[in-house]
Amino acid sequence: MRATLMYGAGDVRVETVPDSVIKHPTDALVRITASCVCGSDLHPYGSMKPEDGPVRMGHEFIGVVEETGSEVTTVERGDLVVAPFAISDNTCPFCREGLHTSCSHPQAGFWDGEPEEGGQAEAVRVPLADGTLVKLPVAPDSALIPSLLTLSDVLGTGHHAAVAGGVNERTSVTVIGDGAVGLLAVLSAKRLGAEQIILMGRHRARTDLGRAFGATDVVSARGDEGIETVRELTGGDGTHVVLEAVGHMPAYDQALGVVRPGGVISRVGVPQYEEAPVGFGSLFRHNIRLAGGPAPVRAYIEELMPDILNGTIEPGKVFDATTDLDGVPAGYRDMADRRSLKTLVKP
Amino acid sequence: MRATLMYGAGDVRVETVPDSVIKHPTDALVRITASCVCGSDLHPYGSMKPEDGPVRMGHEFIGVVEETGSEVTTVERGDLVVAPFAISDNTCPFCREGLHTSCSHPQAGFWDGEPEEGGQAEAVRVPLADGTLVKLPVAPDSALIPSLLTLSDVLGTGHHAAVAGGVNERTSVTVIGDGAVGLLAVLSAKRLGAEQIILMGRHRARTDLGRAFGATDVVSARGDEGIETVRELTGGDGTHVVLEAVGHMPAYDQALGVVRPGGVISRVGVPQYEEAPVGFGSLFRHNIRLAGGPAPVRAYIEELMPDILNGTIEPGKVFDATTDLDGVPAGYRDMADRRSLKTLVKP
Repeated sequence: MRATLMYGAGDVRVETVPDSVIKHPTDALVRITASCVCGSDLHPYGSMKPEDGPVRMGHEFIGVVEETGSEVTTVERGDLVVAPFAISDNTCPFCREGLHTSCSHPQAGFWDGEPEEGGQAEAVRVPLADGTLVKLPVAPDSALIPSLLTLSDVLGTGHHAAVAGGVNERTSVTVIGDGAVGLLAVLSAKRLGAEQIILMGRHRARTDLGRAFGATDVVSARGDEGIETVRELTGGDGTHVVLEAVGHMPAYDQALGVVRPGGVISRVGVPQYEEAPVGFGSLFRHNIRLAGGPAPVRAYIEELMPDILNGTIEPGKVFDATTDLDGVPAGYRDMADRRSLKTLVKP
Repeated sequence: MRATLMYGAGDVRVETVPDSVIKHPTDALVRITASCVCGSDLHPYGSMKPEDGPVRMGHEFIGVVEETGSEVTTVERGDLVVAPFAISDNTCPFCREGLHTSCSHPQAGFWDGEPEEGGQAEAVRVPLADGTLVKLPVAPDSALIPSLLTLSDVLGTGHHAAVAGGVNERTSVTVIGDGAVGLLAVLSAKRLGAEQIILMGRHRARTDLGRAFGATDVVSARGDEGIETVRELTGGDGTHVVLEAVGHMPAYDQALGVVRPGGVISRVGVPQYEEAPVGFGSLFRHNIRLAGGPAPVRAYIEELMPDILNGTIEPGKVFDATTDLDGVPAGYRDMADRRSLKTLVKP
């Protein structure tokens, strides 16, 4: 079968690899019908050393179950399913608390823990299929597929940012980042009732989509100027919640600058730093809280899917390009160059 | 009048200074009847440069109102009052939300913003008296004074740690630090219903008091050994909440080691660092939250005082030494050398 491999920064190739096959009785084999490239894939695309590769890519996909292991009970051959970006058993104490990304099952984890599997491919072996996969009540060619595909990561991640930040109808919100996750954080904040949603981003096509998703204000300035603008929009105080959907240090600094005393910085952009200011002069003085992490998107699928099926939300609008597997390397390039927001892959 | 000044690290003196007098119509002049030395006073006592001194010391006190400015309405001459460690108007939006430490009034702030005033003295001018001072329904020589004095800082701070950490009857708790705040964080966690409260501390007399306050386990080991012990006590996962009542970097690292995935590190020890690990390998991977800050103790006084008056809690047990003003320099020394837990000052 064919699959996507990253050999190092800027070097993505689609190659023929051994077919994925069932290895454990809890596995399912899924023939992928829709996949995509993630903003987080751009981090290694920008920095990965050749000696760390090649690695299989892709952690967001929809597909048709082709075969199941003997212990799998919740999905069967022919089912259309979506997979979250984390593998989990959905039964351990952490999963029962809704923290599937900290599932305690030995086979649980992120897709990069499965070096022979990936979502930007023709097929994939899914461990812990009963816990991980969720059936979709549509056909593989449904017009809802792009929106349903966002349940695998970016919609659940935007929603997680808002939930971890405590967004409700009484909170004002700043969203930092106009990538797919930032835009879906806007949509999620709107869905949870926030009345003021300030989107910080500088790419007009993206911020226009942000306005369509519910942003009340767009701030294109960055750094001190951007911070000053957000403060002007909020009576000088900043917003109760900041949803940080980038992961780079300037975004963290920007979050510190626009958060209100007593407020929350909720991070879902994977931090590209380890140390950051948290002392008296940054978080402590005004009881600023820091929240967020990898979204337990599995926990949110049942809640979010009905809004997609009934057309209340259209998160699939974040896809502005579609390609087959051969076009995946160009998809990475276009996203890295910000010519494309998010690329849908139809293998 | 006489007051305490710090001239530099290890150099505390009691000297005659100009009498405190009313300056603003919202001021009250308070004759201090009980004060104390704070664990946070030990930070400058350990590191203050002589060129930064001398500074007036003390931010926790009870006293009798001697005179009030023309606009003061809630207290009058003869009232016994307690003052929180932060000056606030109790009416601004932040105060109304219970975040008095971020009061937006221009005269609000900490006592070190009042360079001519301090609580380790015979008298003090209290700005924003209506917002700051709270009447006490006892006599100045009541046996409850030590416990009521903790409303000015350490009880409210321990309580804030627990509240900011979300402690309730379903959460397990680790408390790092066996100083007065750590011990009162234990008491507060117990008061809020936590069933498992692990106190990390190595001074037997203090940890015994911690057990009396509600600690179910005491871990005297530090670093990796201490972390390992807490994990053994919690089925390997760590506790839902960690109350960090020290403020030094090793305590932060210890908190990272004992917090459960999805849990909260709630800090009330004033951070003696600005940068700390918050990235994928520390907070982010398992959705660990960081909370806390200077406690808005003013917000908690009405809630906590009844429990002191009716004898449900005895936070005044943290005082293990009493002195007059002349003994204040020795009080600092004894606390710094950990011969004393907390020194009560009767001017």
